[in-house]
Amino acid sequence: MNGLDSAIRDAEAAAYAAYGSSADANVRYLTRFRTTDPVAYVQRQGERGMIVVPQMEHERAVRESPAAVVTRADAGYLEYIKAGETRWRATAHMIADLAGGPVLVPANFPLALARELESFQPVMLDAAGAVEGMRAVKTPEEIEQIRSVQRATEAAMDRGIALIRSSVPKGGILHRDGAPLTSEDVRAEMHTFLLAHGYRGVDTIVSCGPDTALPHSAGTGPLREDEPIVIDIYPQDERTGYHADMTRTVVKGEASPAIREMYEAVRDAQTLGASMLRAGAVGADLYRAVVEFFRDRGYESNTQGFIHSLGHGIGLEVHEEPSLGPQGGVLVPGNVVTVEPGLYYPGTGGVRLEDMGAVTDTGFDRFTQYKEELTL
Amino acid sequence: MNGLDSAIRDAEAAAYAAYGSSADANVRYLTRFRTTDPVAYVQRQGERGMIVVPQMEHERAVRESPAAVVTRADAGYLEYIKAGETRWRATAHMIADLAGGPVLVPANFPLALARELESFQPVMLDAAGAVEGMRAVKTPEEIEQIRSVQRATEAAMDRGIALIRSSVPKGGILHRDGAPLTSEDVRAEMHTFLLAHGYRGVDTIVSCGPDTALPHSAGTGPLREDEPIVIDIYPQDERTGYHADMTRTVVKGEASPAIREMYEAVRDAQTLGASMLRAGAVGADLYRAVVEFFRDRGYESNTQGFIHSLGHGIGLEVHEEPSLGPQGGVLVPGNVVTVEPGLYYPGTGGVRLEDMGAVTDTGFDRFTQYKEELTL
Repeated sequence: MNGLDSAIRDAEAAAYAAYGSSADANVRYLTRFRTTDPVAYVQRQGERGMIVVPQMEHERAVRESPAAVVTRADAGYLEYIKAGETRWRATAHMIADLAGGPVLVPANFPLALARELESFQPVMLDAAGAVEGMRAVKTPEEIEQIRSVQRATEAAMDRGIALIRSSVPKGGILHRDGAPLTSEDVRAEMHTFLLAHGYRGVDTIVSCGPDTALPHSAGTGPLREDEPIVIDIYPQDERTGYHADMTRTVVKGEASPAIREMYEAVRDAQTLGASMLRAGAVGADLYRAVVEFFRDRGYESNTQGFIHSLGHGIGLEVHEEPSLGPQGGVLVPGNVVTVEPGLYYPGTGGVRLEDMGAVTDTGFDRFTQYKEELTL
Repeated sequence: MNGLDSAIRDAEAAAYAAYGSSADANVRYLTRFRTTDPVAYVQRQGERGMIVVPQMEHERAVRESPAAVVTRADAGYLEYIKAGETRWRATAHMIADLAGGPVLVPANFPLALARELESFQPVMLDAAGAVEGMRAVKTPEEIEQIRSVQRATEAAMDRGIALIRSSVPKGGILHRDGAPLTSEDVRAEMHTFLLAHGYRGVDTIVSCGPDTALPHSAGTGPLREDEPIVIDIYPQDERTGYHADMTRTVVKGEASPAIREMYEAVRDAQTLGASMLRAGAVGADLYRAVVEFFRDRGYESNTQGFIHSLGHGIGLEVHEEPSLGPQGGVLVPGNVVTVEPGLYYPGTGGVRLEDMGAVTDTGFDRFTQYKEELTL
């Protein structure tokens, strides 16, 4: 927690405090504790962090969390509740006691808690995002965890693509065992595989035809011959919380010339982007290089064409720092990012290719090994 | 959105604003839009709410959300970013423009956004939790959605229990097909079933023996003969976002006299709690009645024994209002709650039984139909 300790010192705060469930990636990162209900985390300058949990979670927290575990009862919370304080006020009161001075908090700290806390101690906003910054630079252990999620993700992708490959077109619709093959079928095939291996697939995209022109359309119903199918999966390791992320675009049958040209442009843009990745490179420069590359090929980057960023950091959240978009900053070794150019034209369809890997001193350690193949 | 409109009026605000991804239940409730990345929601007094999304999400938002859809570009966000404002400031600037006056925000509104917003408009905290209050009273449509999740949950529970029932004890360990039957096996069986039907099982508990004394221990490894096995599942409907929640405790073989007695006490406590549920009843009264009931049976409610609340509201979040705990307030028709007494003794183990249903004018419309049976 050295990075966080410097932030506490720089802010001249006595402690850092966060509050949330493990769906809050900062809280999960600091506590490594899985919980549906919010917990408080308090780290005093120069000390080990503390997690405050209900009595019923005490033993589990001791098992799971590297932080010191304190029960709400021991931290005075229940007393404050008994004295008639609201949940927010009692939590603030308890955090103020534990902090013992001015408190540094993250950007997403709940306003209700901040307003109560301000009546006990000055509350300083960690505008620089100390924990987000720490999360953006992965340790070798985190890199191995993400790499293993990516391996499972590719195996799942392969199962999904195999279903499409082995389907039989009839009247323009892909069929399997005599019935139409749907987005839902392909998604279920991949999710079931992931689940059996300890990963959770959420909001996976299997879109086809006109829907592919909407980058985040989940897709529904029968898949069609000769039309682009975009498969985008970003599973989470149930145990560690880390994600991988990958996208492939395929066509069963014959791709239209427009889609074939878009595919080639996207693949070349991906190669360009990946070739520029290294420590010291600037995310916004990579993004602009790809915008220019697409412009040279005749594709715009406005309300159609290349309408999203070139990539994003990934870890405990699917989208985290650093960004390879218009506001992206300097990359450092240990950043784990996606490279995912895409082109989207209503009426024609969409194409996206997404790989991921780690930024190193000399380049890009690409985790993704899965082939890029348009026509099945 | 009448409830929210009254809250805006009562606060003498011009608008209500929220900010978050669809993992934020308030945002999902107000927008019905599924998104990993945060979106802004602004509802002006007397008007229909607006959701502000990136250009690439525009068409999907129009399809999915009952709110009016505005792009970030049209809302001025991109201009503010180009002018050098930070992401938080540009978002606050945009929200202030859309609100056109003082802004009412929820308790979990991010502090960073609130501090920027305060430089444009007064920011009032919705201390009463208007949206949480609306969410706590389910419409008939929501009740049907939750009821259907509960049906799937019971079918999944039945699959899990069937695995345990058909297992063969060998040397104290349950076996299936010659190999030990594990927590992971039972969890995977239930999750795979849920997934195939459009539901997502998350952090499901299948704990055994000493682990059952920790209510939220997920459980791991081989299941054992003659020891309590606690199965607690709270799946989410992928499409609607609504949850169900149920728990059963079973023993394959012979339960110890201590566990048998705990089971009977828990079952009777559940009957007592459910019998007191009706509109007008007070959550804290039900909780205290169960504490007293347990005391009469010789079980405490302190650091061991009955160590959690009697139940909780459930909907887009697994735990939401109203509470059947020490602070629980008056129940109203349309509340959907769990009734889940439990007893936990380190060294002996734990027993929990959990049903759910809707509070009505005359009683409790129990959704859960699954039998309670200790010994398999």
